[in-house]
Amino acid sequence: MARIFLVFFLAAPLASLNAEVPDRHQAVVDALFSNALLSDVAYENLRVLCETTEGRIAGSPAAAAAVEFTRQIMDQMDLDSVYLQEMTVPNWKRGEPEVARAISSRFGTTELTVSALGRSVGTGPAGVSAQVVQVMSLQELENLGRAGVEGKIVFLNRPVDQSHYNTFQGYSGAVDQRFRGPSLAAELGAVAALVRSVTTANHDHAHTGGTRYNQNGPNVPGLAISPVGADKLALWLEKDPELNVYIRNTSHTLPDAVSHNVIGEIRGTHYPNQIITVGGHLDSWDNSPGAHDDGAGCMQSIDVLRMFRELGIRPKRTVRAVMFMDEEIAQSGGRKYAELAHKNGEEHYFAIEADRGAFTPRGFTIDANDRMRAAVQALQPYFAAYGMHEFIPGGGGVDIAPLKQFYQMTQAGLLTDSQRYFDLHHAPTDTFDQINRREMQLGSAAMAALIYLLDVLDVLEEI
Amino acid sequence: MARIFLVFFLAAPLASLNAEVPDRHQAVVDALFSNALLSDVAYENLRVLCETTEGRIAGSPAAAAAVEFTRQIMDQMDLDSVYLQEMTVPNWKRGEPEVARAISSRFGTTELTVSALGRSVGTGPAGVSAQVVQVMSLQELENLGRAGVEGKIVFLNRPVDQSHYNTFQGYSGAVDQRFRGPSLAAELGAVAALVRSVTTANHDHAHTGGTRYNQNGPNVPGLAISPVGADKLALWLEKDPELNVYIRNTSHTLPDAVSHNVIGEIRGTHYPNQIITVGGHLDSWDNSPGAHDDGAGCMQSIDVLRMFRELGIRPKRTVRAVMFMDEEIAQSGGRKYAELAHKNGEEHYFAIEADRGAFTPRGFTIDANDRMRAAVQALQPYFAAYGMHEFIPGGGGVDIAPLKQFYQMTQAGLLTDSQRYFDLHHAPTDTFDQINRREMQLGSAAMAALIYLLDVLDVLEEI
Repeated sequence: MARIFLVFFLAAPLASLNAEVPDRHQAVVDALFSNALLSDVAYENLRVLCETTEGRIAGSPAAAAAVEFTRQIMDQMDLDSVYLQEMTVPNWKRGEPEVARAISSRFGTTELTVSALGRSVGTGPAGVSAQVVQVMSLQELENLGRAGVEGKIVFLNRPVDQSHYNTFQGYSGAVDQRFRGPSLAAELGAVAALVRSVTTANHDHAHTGGTRYNQNGPNVPGLAISPVGADKLALWLEKDPELNVYIRNTSHTLPDAVSHNVIGEIRGTHYPNQIITVGGHLDSWDNSPGAHDDGAGCMQSIDVLRMFRELGIRPKRTVRAVMFMDEEIAQSGGRKYAELAHKNGEEHYFAIEADRGAFTPRGFTIDANDRMRAAVQALQPYFAAYGMHEFIPGGGGVDIAPLKQFYQMTQAGLLTDSQRYFDLHHAPTDTFDQINRREMQLGSAAMAALIYLLDVLDVLEEI
Repeated sequence: MARIFLVFFLAAPLASLNAEVPDRHQAVVDALFSNALLSDVAYENLRVLCETTEGRIAGSPAAAAAVEFTRQIMDQMDLDSVYLQEMTVPNWKRGEPEVARAISSRFGTTELTVSALGRSVGTGPAGVSAQVVQVMSLQELENLGRAGVEGKIVFLNRPVDQSHYNTFQGYSGAVDQRFRGPSLAAELGAVAALVRSVTTANHDHAHTGGTRYNQNGPNVPGLAISPVGADKLALWLEKDPELNVYIRNTSHTLPDAVSHNVIGEIRGTHYPNQIITVGGHLDSWDNSPGAHDDGAGCMQSIDVLRMFRELGIRPKRTVRAVMFMDEEIAQSGGRKYAELAHKNGEEHYFAIEADRGAFTPRGFTIDANDRMRAAVQALQPYFAAYGMHEFIPGGGGVDIAPLKQFYQMTQAGLLTDSQRYFDLHHAPTDTFDQINRREMQLGSAAMAALIYLLDVLDVLEEI
C-alpha cells in the first residue's frame, strides 16, 4: 500500500484546526455568486462594447466611444458618483494594412500575415526589402553583431514553450523578443524586425503588443508575424537562405491626444476616504474587439457595484470601479489615477484588477507584505465551493501598480484559468463569442466577494 | 483584524504534516503533463473523428466508421493488442428533420426549433396538432391529471437553475423533465411532449438526450425544444392559451444492429491479468459532431497509451484504452465490457472514464470505499501544480459502472471545469472548434498520471 501523503494547500498560518467560516459572511459570498451567475447585465454590456468600440486603442475615436459608453452605463446605476479623469495619451496609428511578402527565387512569392507592434515606426510608403536573418533568442541576435545584421530584416522566431501548465510562464519566456527585439535589431543596423506572435495558438493571425523602442533611436519597424506565417518563412529560409522579404507599414505617431479614465463609486458608510479600487482597462489593441483583454475586466468591475447595490451591501469604505485608459501603450491611465489619488489626499485600502481574461477564476494573486498576504489567504475557505484554491503571491495588475508609489497597500489580481488566454491575446480573435457568460460572471462574483470580506472584516487594518 | 480561518482541502486522513512527495514519481507526472501539452496527436485525431464521423449514434454508419477509425489509430501505435468487442445495439433513427410550429389566431405562425429525444416514436407522416399545456415540473403535470392533459401537447418548460457553480447540479435539477416527462405525459393521455432543452445556453439549438419510455406503453413523441423556442412559446401561451402547436417527426426504431467497443492495450509487466481501464464513449448523438461528448474522452484515453509508450512507462498491470459504444441510448457497450471481463476471469484493479467534456481538469470524482478513496485523495499533491484540487466522492462514469456488478473496485471520473459543458451537450454546437488543445491535453495527462501512480505505488492493493 502506498504511503499516505499530505499537503496543505493554504499558505496561511495554521492558527487553528477548528476555525470555522462564519455563516453570515459566507451567506453574502454565496448570494454574490448566485446573483452573478443569474445575471447577464455585464455580459450584454460587454457585447455592446465589443461591437461598437472595437479597436479602442488610446487616442482613437473608439476609445472615446468606450469612455462615453461606460460612463453612461454607470450613470444609470444609481451610484454615488460617476466621473472622468482626464489625461494625455500617446496617439499611435497603425496606418494602412501592413504588407509582408517572402520572395524566393526557388519558391516564388508568398504573403505573410503581420501586424505592426505598438508604437512601431513605418517603413515609408515604398516599404523595405531585404534578406532575412533568423534568430531564436536576443542573445543569438547580439552574438551576430552588426556584421551579421546590418541591412537585414531580423526574424525572431522562438515560439512560446507550451510545456508549462501556466501559459503566462510560456508567454513570459518568449515575449522578450517582442519587447526588445526591434530595438536591439535597430542598434545592430537592421532595417526591420519580424517577431513571431507570442501566442499559444497555431493560426494565421498576428498578435500585436507593445515593444520597447530606444529612447533616442535608432529604431526600425517592428511587426508581429502569425505563427503560420513564421513557420512558413522558417521553412523557406531553410531551403533558400538568400530569399528576400518585403515589408510595408505606415504606422506613425501623431501628437498626444486627450483621453479619460472612467470611474463610478459607492461611497463608504464609515470610512469614505478609504478607497477600494476594482478595475480593468478600457483600451484594447487597435486590431481587436478586446473582449477578454480587457473589456471583460471593465464590465466585471462595474458588475461589482451592480451587485452591491442589488444585494443592499453598503460597504464601510468607498468602492470604486475604474476603467483605466491606455494600459496597452503607455499606462497613462494607471499613472494618472495614482497621481490624482495622492494629490487628493485619498487613503487607499485595497485595489484589485481583472486583466487575465474572463475565464473561470482559480484564485487571486496577492501583492502585499507577508502578514497581509496571509490575512487574504486566510479568506480562501469562503471561495472553496467556487473552485478557487490558488491564493498566491503575484502582482495585482499594471493599472493599479502605480498606486504603490504612494501607498503601502495590498493589491490583488483576479487569477483565471490561463489555458485559452494567449490564443486570443492582442489578436483579432479576441472576440465576444469567445466569452462564456458563466465564466465571466464567476470572476465578477469573486472580486465582489473578496472586496466585501476585506471591507466588512477590516482584514487589511494593521494587526 | 479579521480572525485567521483555516481549512484543509484534502479529505484524506491527516497522517503526517511532514510527508513529502517522492521526487521520482513527481518527475514522471511532470513528464506526462509536459508531453501532453506539447502533443497535438489526440487533438488532430479528434478533428478527424468529428469531421468524418459526425452524428455517430449507435447503429449508424458513422458509428461504424468511428469504430474503424479508432481501431486504425491504435493499430498504428505498437500496442500489445488491439481488438473489438461485438455487441447488439438499439437502432433508433431520427428520420426526417422535425417540424414544430406554433399557430395562434392572435400572433400568426412561428417555427420552433426542436429535436426528437432518443428512442422517441414518431408522430406519423401527417404530424399532430393540439393545444398546449405548459408545466414547470413533473409534479405539476401529475396534479393536472388526465382531465388537464388528455389530447394535448405537454410542454415541460422549467429551465436549468444557473445559480449553481457546478452546472451538473443545474442539469440534474432539470433533466427529470426529459427523462420522465414524455412517458408521464403519455400515461395521462397527452399526444406529445415538448421538453425545454436542458442547457445553460440561451440559443436556438435544441439539445436532445435520452428519455425513459414506458416499457409497455403508452408512449408519445418526445422532443426537445430550443431555449429560444421555449421562451417564445411560453410568451405566446401567456397571451393566447388556446394556440395550437403542430409537430411532425418520423423517428423510429429499426431492428437491433451490431456494433463494437474498440480496445487497445499495453500488457502489464507484473500482473497482466489485472486490468486498468481508461475510456470514453465513441458514440455521440446523431445531431452532433460529439467533440466534447465524448470524442475527446476517447482520444484522451488513447493518448494515455501513447504517452506511456513515448515515455517508456511500462505498467505492472495491463492498461486498456476502451472506446465504449452506445453510451447515449442503451449503454450496451459498458454492459458488454463488464460481462466479458467477468466471463474471461479478468481482475479489474481500477477504471477511469472521461465524459465531462475536454475542459481544464479540476480533479477526479472517486467511487470507492472510504479507505481506497482516501488513498486516491492522498495522491492529490502530485497534481497540485496542475490546478487539480478537487478529489471528491462521485461516480466514475456510465460506461465503467457496470464493472461494479462483478468487481469490488475503485473507479474514478475525470472532473473538469463544468461552466461550458451544458452549452453544447447533446447539441449541434458540440463542434471541434469548441475544443482547446491545451485543456484537452491536461485531461489526457491527468488520467495518465493517476494511472501511473495507482499502478507503480500499488495504491489500490488492500492495505
